[in-house]
Amino acid sequence: MRRPRFTPLVEAIPATVPFVAPDALLRRGHRIEVRLGANESAFGVAPRAAEAMARAVPHQNWYADPESFELRAKLAGLLGVTEQHLLVGSGIDDLLGLVVRCFVAPGEVAVMARGSYPTFAYHVVGHGGLVEAVPYRDDAVDLEALAEAATRRRARVVYLANPDNPSGSWHTPQSVEALVERLPADCLLLLDEAYLEFAPRAPELSADDPRVLRVRTFSKLYGMAGARIGYAVGPPEIVATFHKVRLHFGVNGVAQAGALAALDDVAFATSVIAEVARGRQAYAALGRELGLPTLPSATNFVLFDVGGAARARALLDALLAEGIFIRMPGAPPLDRAVRVTVGTADERARFASALRGMRADGRLAALGAG
Amino acid sequence: MRRPRFTPLVEAIPATVPFVAPDALLRRGHRIEVRLGANESAFGVAPRAAEAMARAVPHQNWYADPESFELRAKLAGLLGVTEQHLLVGSGIDDLLGLVVRCFVAPGEVAVMARGSYPTFAYHVVGHGGLVEAVPYRDDAVDLEALAEAATRRRARVVYLANPDNPSGSWHTPQSVEALVERLPADCLLLLDEAYLEFAPRAPELSADDPRVLRVRTFSKLYGMAGARIGYAVGPPEIVATFHKVRLHFGVNGVAQAGALAALDDVAFATSVIAEVARGRQAYAALGRELGLPTLPSATNFVLFDVGGAARARALLDALLAEGIFIRMPGAPPLDRAVRVTVGTADERARFASALRGMRADGRLAALGAG
Repeated sequence: MRRPRFTPLVEAIPATVPFVAPDALLRRGHRIEVRLGANESAFGVAPRAAEAMARAVPHQNWYADPESFELRAKLAGLLGVTEQHLLVGSGIDDLLGLVVRCFVAPGEVAVMARGSYPTFAYHVVGHGGLVEAVPYRDDAVDLEALAEAATRRRARVVYLANPDNPSGSWHTPQSVEALVERLPADCLLLLDEAYLEFAPRAPELSADDPRVLRVRTFSKLYGMAGARIGYAVGPPEIVATFHKVRLHFGVNGVAQAGALAALDDVAFATSVIAEVARGRQAYAALGRELGLPTLPSATNFVLFDVGGAARARALLDALLAEGIFIRMPGAPPLDRAVRVTVGTADERARFASALRGMRADGRLAALGAG
Repeated sequence: MRRPRFTPLVEAIPATVPFVAPDALLRRGHRIEVRLGANESAFGVAPRAAEAMARAVPHQNWYADPESFELRAKLAGLLGVTEQHLLVGSGIDDLLGLVVRCFVAPGEVAVMARGSYPTFAYHVVGHGGLVEAVPYRDDAVDLEALAEAATRRRARVVYLANPDNPSGSWHTPQSVEALVERLPADCLLLLDEAYLEFAPRAPELSADDPRVLRVRTFSKLYGMAGARIGYAVGPPEIVATFHKVRLHFGVNGVAQAGALAALDDVAFATSVIAEVARGRQAYAALGRELGLPTLPSATNFVLFDVGGAARARALLDALLAEGIFIRMPGAPPLDRAVRVTVGTADERARFASALRGMRADGRLAALGAG
């Protein structure tokens, strides 16, 4: 029987979901008491943002500003760019999709590190593009391999998360700036800076460089993951092109109010950065104590090397059975590790206690053996 | 100089914006005291939704459920369908884009009424499709013309807003059901029911019919336009395909909490529907009084026939100068009218007073003459 049919491109895409959400785990009967799997901020919503969001609620009968003008003006001042260099979207995921849609035609190639943030690859596949994934090197993104693959495959976009998720690794400003010079002139560097604030410093790239677009979020540092708001910084020509196709009334008004206020919450942001640094050190000490070495991290999460994918999966399952939600990288070589978000001191203690219990009764040594 | 280039499809799209937002008017120095231009609800956010949204704010450091499971389960019960028949998106605009992306390949055709909700056409153009627009007939969507054009152009999708925006017109369930039968078997009827609750009744189409997808919103009746949340109801096969490409973490958590609670706010919804009906009658009486006949409306807005596009534009500008924001349809024949959202009794009085003042000093008669 004839019936409405999907486009050939969409029809050919396999069914995948980038992440299994904690909510889905709960619906499968799991109990989650300590939520350290999604790199959410354990330190809550920035208080000024929370106040502003609550104040905005009664006004949600009105459409929000589709240009997010106030937020862009504020960001422009903070970043030393103009409003025309900025686009606000419903989180980085939304912006990644927009970049792919605008730069990667069906059959064209985008390059990324194999195992890095899967939502970028999800969008490339979803728009009919091809993903060229290059292996991590020394558990970090291999910038030379990115540049080599971009040249070899005539890539339209190179995706670099810096700091990277899930590796937690970070490249210096000089290295990122050198990468830009090594890329083909017609290849865009899409720099995902979701975890920027937890890293030592940011690259000093020009927002007018036609080869670079950066995306950032309020999800992590400001504790607004549920609000879905982030922004892109780059040359006005690119931003103007996004306006031709983007969802204009897409960003929630409560989120816009919260993001604007969050930027004033400097004391909170400073305290979260300090607490995350303390938590990383605590995790590193825990890893040494238990013989599960941690990898260096410039983010709000840490990888514990468990020694193999089967062992990592078993540890993840064992912790979930105790109400502790963590995740693990999806691809070698990092799938030998589990990824643990920096929690509050209390959450870290719960996690440490669970691991020590598993060591004490022999479960940690026997991981993945069954 | 070589530089990153956009896809040929995106490069070729003209720069357009579906709507100039009230916020943009404010930035141009206009003052808006009475906001009757965007068909927002004058009756505020549903109280239960507002409470739930405020309660949700402190939890926004967590990602929201990407499956909107609770909301879908609640809707499924109310609508007599399963969760697999439902998809939640960031408002109808988001869902329209998804439908176009999944059904209209570049170069393929979508059919709509000329002058109907422009965001649908925006998405068709944005995905490289072609819009075949058929004229209104007797100031209502011409269902026969839609069917004829769909057959002639081998359209992939026919868009029907029922009730329609901006005409306010409405077709009976029987007429819509008959339209489905007249469409080519491989053409999807995309039924935009944003204003459904203000109409006499809804078509009783099966949610399993592979030829029909309906989209609905919390923006209007429940006063949640700023929250950006709506849903699609249709066959599980279509919903499953959307999951392959949609933005999984796109819907704000505050909005999800609000929408879930709004569905319990039956008394509020009933009162808004009654108040909107009263307001439409008051507008009709005002139109008779002033010699500006109103068109029948099954929505929360009313068209006042001003007798020509230049006059309509002049009236719109004159009212804006008095702090009253309204809009006008963008295409003939309806651009002879202005579109006024049903406001509160107080807002309606402000609007009526401004019009009466313009009649008294001769400006109403002279509209567009200069």
